[in-house]
Amino acid sequence: MKQFHKTIERLKSLDTTVTRLGHIAALLEWDQETYMPNGGVEGRAAQIALIVGLHHEKIVDPEWESLFSDIEYRDGSTPSDLSEIDSAFLRESYKRWKKKARVPRKLVEDLAREASLSQAAWAAARKADDFSAFAPHLEKMINLEREYARAVAPDADVYDTLLDEYEPGATRVEITKVFDGLAEGLRDLMDRISSGTAPETDFLEKPYDISRQNAFGKKIQAYMGYDTHRGRLDLSAHPFTTTLGPDDVRVTTRYDENLVLSGLFSNIHEAGHGLYEQGAGEKLRGTLLADGTSLGVHESQSRFWENTVGRSRAFWDRWYSDFQILFPENLTGIDSDRFYRAVNSVQPSLIRVEADEVTYSFHIIIRFRLEQALISGDLQVADLPGAWRDAYRELLGITPPNDAEGCLQDVHWSVGLFGYFPTYALGNLYAAQFTKAMEAELGPLPDQIGEGRADGVLKWLRENIHVHGRVYPPGDLCRRVTGKPLDSSYFLKYLNEKYAEVYGF
Amino acid sequence: MKQFHKTIERLKSLDTTVTRLGHIAALLEWDQETYMPNGGVEGRAAQIALIVGLHHEKIVDPEWESLFSDIEYRDGSTPSDLSEIDSAFLRESYKRWKKKARVPRKLVEDLAREASLSQAAWAAARKADDFSAFAPHLEKMINLEREYARAVAPDADVYDTLLDEYEPGATRVEITKVFDGLAEGLRDLMDRISSGTAPETDFLEKPYDISRQNAFGKKIQAYMGYDTHRGRLDLSAHPFTTTLGPDDVRVTTRYDENLVLSGLFSNIHEAGHGLYEQGAGEKLRGTLLADGTSLGVHESQSRFWENTVGRSRAFWDRWYSDFQILFPENLTGIDSDRFYRAVNSVQPSLIRVEADEVTYSFHIIIRFRLEQALISGDLQVADLPGAWRDAYRELLGITPPNDAEGCLQDVHWSVGLFGYFPTYALGNLYAAQFTKAMEAELGPLPDQIGEGRADGVLKWLRENIHVHGRVYPPGDLCRRVTGKPLDSSYFLKYLNEKYAEVYGF
Repeated sequence: MKQFHKTIERLKSLDTTVTRLGHIAALLEWDQETYMPNGGVEGRAAQIALIVGLHHEKIVDPEWESLFSDIEYRDGSTPSDLSEIDSAFLRESYKRWKKKARVPRKLVEDLAREASLSQAAWAAARKADDFSAFAPHLEKMINLEREYARAVAPDADVYDTLLDEYEPGATRVEITKVFDGLAEGLRDLMDRISSGTAPETDFLEKPYDISRQNAFGKKIQAYMGYDTHRGRLDLSAHPFTTTLGPDDVRVTTRYDENLVLSGLFSNIHEAGHGLYEQGAGEKLRGTLLADGTSLGVHESQSRFWENTVGRSRAFWDRWYSDFQILFPENLTGIDSDRFYRAVNSVQPSLIRVEADEVTYSFHIIIRFRLEQALISGDLQVADLPGAWRDAYRELLGITPPNDAEGCLQDVHWSVGLFGYFPTYALGNLYAAQFTKAMEAELGPLPDQIGEGRADGVLKWLRENIHVHGRVYPPGDLCRRVTGKPLDSSYFLKYLNEKYAEVYGF
Repeated sequence: MKQFHKTIERLKSLDTTVTRLGHIAALLEWDQETYMPNGGVEGRAAQIALIVGLHHEKIVDPEWESLFSDIEYRDGSTPSDLSEIDSAFLRESYKRWKKKARVPRKLVEDLAREASLSQAAWAAARKADDFSAFAPHLEKMINLEREYARAVAPDADVYDTLLDEYEPGATRVEITKVFDGLAEGLRDLMDRISSGTAPETDFLEKPYDISRQNAFGKKIQAYMGYDTHRGRLDLSAHPFTTTLGPDDVRVTTRYDENLVLSGLFSNIHEAGHGLYEQGAGEKLRGTLLADGTSLGVHESQSRFWENTVGRSRAFWDRWYSDFQILFPENLTGIDSDRFYRAVNSVQPSLIRVEADEVTYSFHIIIRFRLEQALISGDLQVADLPGAWRDAYRELLGITPPNDAEGCLQDVHWSVGLFGYFPTYALGNLYAAQFTKAMEAELGPLPDQIGEGRADGVLKWLRENIHVHGRVYPPGDLCRRVTGKPLDSSYFLKYLNEKYAEVYGF
């Protein structure tokens, strides 16, 4: 037994190096997106390649295999007296090692090189609205992703293997069931919304001073409990959250004078991700467990703050007067109720990242269906633009006038992220189901977020979700927190109640 | 011969990895000094230790030894048909490998750990003005530095070995000779200055708005030719220049409302360092040769811009009206001549980093003498405060009232930087000697810096100094550029002519 614990300590020490190299790579990328001068691009790419290579080397180091074999470890087979955290550490580190060790070095390098070329081709093709220029790259990425999935798990469903990278344990069959119910419920809701009264939004369509946007955004991040002693806010072209060390979790945002809500909700969204990362338990410090348990659960944290809190009446009852006073030129005479309703205007649109809370999931469901068909071969790359238009017409009732605003709008597929999109919609569902459990314990959410800092809410999230990091896989965490597996009914109920009031139907 | 070139290519590829790891370490340090949240300190220390460890590992990789032995390389023994750059590459990479491979890993780790403890103890001791709390750490660092020098070069003079880290090829004997002449010349000059008329400086001792200081500083960096496409300016507690990649050379500064010249001359000084790093030749890209050839030559570049240019009459004739217009509240009625004279006020003072152009070298000469005595054992650590006071009284005619403003003022010795201080004064001497050579070619410097950008000056520095990186050791470079070995007469002549005019003696 003593030998057993010594082996675990040695495995942890190997993991520490892997984790640190991951944090170093995160700094290289953060700097590239925030402060690096243009000239640095080429050198930075080489530096990132070097660190990513060392990171991979340390993950597949033969010592892992020999240590796992010393303790005769196989999936989940841990002695019963092991702590929950040590069991999870073995489970996750074994899974990582086994997966990475199975992928031939050549495939890793091919994927990295092709993704880089493909991303550049995608950016050019989107700009020129020329899908045919991107098609051969997409084809290649699909083939490489298939090859990758077969290397990792030769006998498994290819799409399920890709999905597992982002939402461990999830399957296409389960998600299809959940999304089918979601789509049906959302279609019904959209019918009711179109029978209601649309909010006025003209006062949002004016210029809002950026430095005052920034001041307000920082105030809200502080209210949420985002810790700037262990993080910071910067500007970047695309908002993101990144972890550079156990006590260094940074967020970025972007402001547009003419899109005041976009900057504010980016601030809130990213701080929601940041809180999850800042909240990992002390015992997980510096290990691979100090991370979100899945992208879906991660997205539940950002979307809970962005939508459930930030687009709620209670939030604007609390904050509107502070906001109004910053922008008298736009908001004099507009009361809190009118503002709240404007924030929750619903409108089918072409671009995913600009979609409202109700129509957002349609964009994801479309991508989920199309990417499965691309991976299985049921849909040929050449037929993607047409299939995309058909899907938008059918689910959202609008048709993209071109591919730039259609199937070329997102970067994901160009860099091989298949199986990633569903996690965005799963985040909405987790958030609603978690909120229900939170309210059962704390009472109605509006009472929790109306005054001072949202301390009670954050405490609950910390104790029930953040502190556990990756100790529980997402399915287990969901059952542990809510008593049930994930389903779409909580989210649909939340939307129906909210929008019945906003749209008066 | 083909095999020979193949071996060189392989050596260069090993060096590429070493250089990249160095750039990555530089980013980790730059971020720590500029944007890292406080909470990140501990994690960052571990990340830096990891990269520094990998860097060392790659430098002492056994493949270096086997490649050098394949081509039977020993110090300087290169085939005659090898290019100058390849010869330099072999010389420098062999020297680095031989040195690092001789230092036991335990000593490397002891030095890193003790330096970190010692720096913290120094900061606390300086704050509390308590030399005795720092003394045991200084003692330990001196012992470790002696041990390091003996490991690197068992038969050489210990101080010379340390000096060689910063000023390759320099010796205590040579520097002593140069500094003795310098001290004598400076004492004579100080006598003459004290017989002259001191400039008024009261208009400098007022608050200057920081954002306008920053705007002017950036303008001057652009005038110098510092390329912000390949660099950037940020704030940090102590100004520095750092290279994060072949096209990413960053500088930092600090501003104090009440010390307007301090911020401006930091801007100029660091941009001078930055120009040297930005100017390394294309053929040196990404190799260990793309760096300053010594700290003394590096300092010559920063001090040339800061003092020879930035404190010159021609510079202020060109720039004063732009400066005056930014600060009408302080400078209305002050003409360019009065301002120029104020900028060149001379006054013996206790703190090195605040010293003027004339008295600065005295601070260095004192440290050079004391650190040799500490390393040789002629001076005991306990006797340092007294020896320091004596030296200041003797050379500068003033006595520190306490150790915080005396021997505790600089961080260098606390982290083991013995042999580093002399390079600051050597920089002044190189700068004056280089300027003489530049003027022989281009004509008087004042004619070169009076209009538009200082393009001609930068071009000369690029072609004669920057482009060569570390291809020529500093002594060779000095003879190549000026036809003579380094001597103090150029600097003394420059000072005497300038201050005769400023002080009217």
